[in-house]
Amino acid sequence: MSLELEPRLQPSDDDGWRLRAFRIIFDHDTPGGRLFDLLLIVAILASVLVTMLDSMPRLQDRDWGAFFALEWTFTILFTLEYIARLLVVREPLRYARSFYGVVDLLAILPTYVSLLIPGTQYLLVLRILRILRVFRILKLTRYMSEAGLLMGALARSGHKIFVFLCAILTIVTVFGALMYMIEGPENGFTSIPTGIYWAIVTVGTVGLGDISPGTPLGRFLASILILIGYGIIAVPTGIYTAEIAQGLRLRHDSRVCPICDLRGHEDDAVYCRRCGQDLGDTTP
Amino acid sequence: MSLELEPRLQPSDDDGWRLRAFRIIFDHDTPGGRLFDLLLIVAILASVLVTMLDSMPRLQDRDWGAFFALEWTFTILFTLEYIARLLVVREPLRYARSFYGVVDLLAILPTYVSLLIPGTQYLLVLRILRILRVFRILKLTRYMSEAGLLMGALARSGHKIFVFLCAILTIVTVFGALMYMIEGPENGFTSIPTGIYWAIVTVGTVGLGDISPGTPLGRFLASILILIGYGIIAVPTGIYTAEIAQGLRLRHDSRVCPICDLRGHEDDAVYCRRCGQDLGDTTP
Amino acid sequence: MSLELEPRLQPSDDDGWRLRAFRIIFDHDTPGGRLFDLLLIVAILASVLVTMLDSMPRLQDRDWGAFFALEWTFTILFTLEYIARLLVVREPLRYARSFYGVVDLLAILPTYVSLLIPGTQYLLVLRILRILRVFRILKLTRYMSEAGLLMGALARSGHKIFVFLCAILTIVTVFGALMYMIEGPENGFTSIPTGIYWAIVTVGTVGLGDISPGTPLGRFLASILILIGYGIIAVPTGIYTAEIAQGLRLRHDSRVCPICDLRGHEDDAVYCRRCGQDLGDTTP
Amino acid sequence: MSLELEPRLQPSDDDGWRLRAFRIIFDHDTPGGRLFDLLLIVAILASVLVTMLDSMPRLQDRDWGAFFALEWTFTILFTLEYIARLLVVREPLRYARSFYGVVDLLAILPTYVSLLIPGTQYLLVLRILRILRVFRILKLTRYMSEAGLLMGALARSGHKIFVFLCAILTIVTVFGALMYMIEGPENGFTSIPTGIYWAIVTVGTVGLGDISPGTPLGRFLASILILIGYGIIAVPTGIYTAEIAQGLRLRHDSRVCPICDLRGHEDDAVYCRRCGQDLGDTTP
Repeated sequence: MSLELEPRLQPSDDDGWRLRAFRIIFDHDTPGGRLFDLLLIVAILASVLVTMLDSMPRLQDRDWGAFFALEWTFTILFTLEYIARLLVVREPLRYARSFYGVVDLLAILPTYVSLLIPGTQYLLVLRILRILRVFRILKLTRYMSEAGLLMGALARSGHKIFVFLCAILTIVTVFGALMYMIEGPENGFTSIPTGIYWAIVTVGTVGLGDISPGTPLGRFLASILILIGYGIIAVPTGIYTAEIAQGLRLRHDSRVCPICDLRGHEDDAVYCRRCGQDLGDTTP
Repeated sequence: MSLELEPRLQPSDDDGWRLRAFRIIFDHDTPGGRLFDLLLIVAILASVLVTMLDSMPRLQDRDWGAFFALEWTFTILFTLEYIARLLVVREPLRYARSFYGVVDLLAILPTYVSLLIPGTQYLLVLRILRILRVFRILKLTRYMSEAGLLMGALARSGHKIFVFLCAILTIVTVFGALMYMIEGPENGFTSIPTGIYWAIVTVGTVGLGDISPGTPLGRFLASILILIGYGIIAVPTGIYTAEIAQGLRLRHDSRVCPICDLRGHEDDAVYCRRCGQDLGDTTP
Repeated sequence: MSLELEPRLQPSDDDGWRLRAFRIIFDHDTPGGRLFDLLLIVAILASVLVTMLDSMPRLQDRDWGAFFALEWTFTILFTLEYIARLLVVREPLRYARSFYGVVDLLAILPTYVSLLIPGTQYLLVLRILRILRVFRILKLTRYMSEAGLLMGALARSGHKIFVFLCAILTIVTVFGALMYMIEGPENGFTSIPTGIYWAIVTVGTVGLGDISPGTPLGRFLASILILIGYGIIAVPTGIYTAEIAQGLRLRHDSRVCPICDLRGHEDDAVYCRRCGQDLGDTTP
Repeated sequence: MSLELEPRLQPSDDDGWRLRAFRIIFDHDTPGGRLFDLLLIVAILASVLVTMLDSMPRLQDRDWGAFFALEWTFTILFTLEYIARLLVVREPLRYARSFYGVVDLLAILPTYVSLLIPGTQYLLVLRILRILRVFRILKLTRYMSEAGLLMGALARSGHKIFVFLCAILTIVTVFGALMYMIEGPENGFTSIPTGIYWAIVTVGTVGLGDISPGTPLGRFLASILILIGYGIIAVPTGIYTAEIAQGLRLRHDSRVCPICDLRGHEDDAVYCRRCGQDLGDTTP
């Protein structure tokens, strides 16, 4: 199953209440749609907050009943919303299989599942993923071009980041195994996977400190690994920065001077900086 | 209440001592004003130092009386200064509601409040915020353009950083909840908020180590989170660097268009991009 | 012995099965070669996984026999592959002394050595280095140019990174010695090398926390070191980013000079910078 | 006393052995001078190594006599070298007050001082500063331009980094005081300076973990501080990267096209990319 991130959903053929409901639920630029979006965001944040507070032992003991009631209220509300979404679109299956459709389903399933398997209700925190709808709403504003710039840079960086991740994983595997052999279980390196975990924590400059080398040779190896990590942390930054810089530069690039073919004009340019030609009517 | 960062305060109408006092207290380019600024900076730093030393148990036991006296001395001095500022400006309320007016009040309140509520005198360290006045004084020098460059880059980055922060908060919420479910209270993950705190500490590559995953699955998830954090730390750097680079590039060229006074031309510009004027013979 | 990274190996003179075997083992663009590569990658990953699982105490106790059998199976398979490679190339010694030849040998030696010296079988994890063959296969695709861009930037950064590493090592030596003198063995700084290890861990922003300063002066020095590290972490990033950006900028333009075949022209180039040829009508 | 980093020292007027000794000791491009430099570097590294090993308890107990002898041997050698340097320059005082003169003196003093005050012999590790002479020698090669590029970027970044450091110190002071008030001595925040130390360790993404917040409010504040640090770590990187990029770009900038005044040619450019003019004879 491949998830469509943003299928262009159509209202159901019915012209009556379904079209009006579609306008409210799926549109973001009508007054009704904006109000619905706002209420939805508030409900999502409130439901996530309830799930968080429910996990705190002291609160849970005292207010068990209230949390239980709130959880089911939100679940029923979101279930009704999910059903409404299915009803008002022309292709319900296409919505159900889209990214947001799957997230909407994930937001209500855990409560029902927790009736069968206790403990899973904390998966409700996945509701936070629904907050991604915020981006969908903000899309209509200038956030769209910013997110597009970041995503474009991320996409162009993909191949380089993949090469980089392979190199990192090779390095941490070798160092994890060496540390396991040198330090051994008595210093916390109980297995090679544990050693790899330690190497990732160290090369990523996190350094949780739950496992630390105790022997001089282990400390020497750790120092080498840190210096490698120090040099390597620059690589994704460098890749990404260069791509964003290129994205910023290219974004200015849509206009071409009709006389001298110069590209890369500033946003506020009226005349070509090389030949003085008026650029005004060349805007696409 | 919206804080005006830098209202253009006028001296009171009175021509006599009030104008002279205004020149000393609010101006930074007269000999008297410079001396006042210098004494003020020294007094601020000294008062912050006293508050710090007062918090050290050994010193506090021995020199309780001295700290008490010094604290009140500084408070009375700053109170007198605050009253003087109110007296010599034309619109006292506008000063009192400006950013620096509020900071000046915050610098004296804690001592008085500590008479009623013991323990609050450590809020005196907020006096350090008064040190921001240094920037106001340095503004007259070339620090202004540097700060302007940084602020400009920060302002242009604002929308992108907001998108980025939303993404980070979503990631840490999901990972915090998963770690709470996997590790549980026996490994220190006592609630979902605690898990989120751990995820922020980890994704920010801080790694305090007060909470550490103990199960293999938890360590695997932590490794994933670190690799994500590793890739993600590049994003704000990339955004900011690209913006600073663009700011530097535009500032780099000192040419000013003789017709429309536009600054910030590209290196290779021959004509003004706003009005089409030939820039060629204006190169210094 | 200098390792040739990529010697252009020739098939043995024999035209029969040896040439066919060479095509399968060393080529990556025939169907047989692709299948062989795929099986090899799977076998490498499986053998590394077995070595990792073998190191986990619980699994090792239970499945000792299975791990032993799998280890020897992989070792014999890789030994046969190694012998086959030696047989089908024209210059076996040149292969054996190349980078991949040495890695291939390292991948099988530890099992044999562990017969004599127990415990060395964990060196089998060095088999992960064989995974580098992936890059050799991917080379034929567009990953080659990405890796080339990263390597080119790394090579151009080499001199600057060397200067930077010397500065870092000087700083950590001085701070390590000072911390040893100030903190002493009672706070974990048992010798100057330990102090240097701590300084590397700190300046690299890892902060394992196994050793921490306990005295006020030590903490003050640690703060200074962190602020230095904070400023310094920017240096390799800055070097590397600038070099990648330059690499991207030059690659960005797809134009080729029709006279001298020079690639990598600036965006605004009208004439070839090497031979002066007009590039104008060569834009795609 | 202002230290001259690199005074242009002249040989003493005497033409005989003093001039020859000056050529060997101070010059780096004669065969004798090169040999002397090499021996000096080896002696410096060996003496630092001895100081390090001397600090290790196990070695010190066993080889106390050997370390003592080696330390005095190096000290006497370096003392003789220092006296020789004073003898062969025209202005001994100017050498003694230069940066390298002071470092050379610091490299021998601790051994003599340790006769009076035991324990100070570990200051001998300051001898590592003498290793900076390496840069002086490498200066003659192309490392000079690389170091110059880095130093130039650092110098141009100075004002911005100063503004940045003031902002950081203000932030850590405020957070340090707040954490002291919230967490208090029972969670390790024994005083405001300790809180500031913790805030520096955290905002610098080091996270030693010797002090950790224990209360929910403290953890919330710590999360805020980490997110601030996360956004802020980009600032010095951004500043520095942009300056290096500009330095790299300007380094290509020495040539100006005689026809169209274009600057910023590539290193290998023979013809102007804008107008096709031969640049060959305009190289400075």
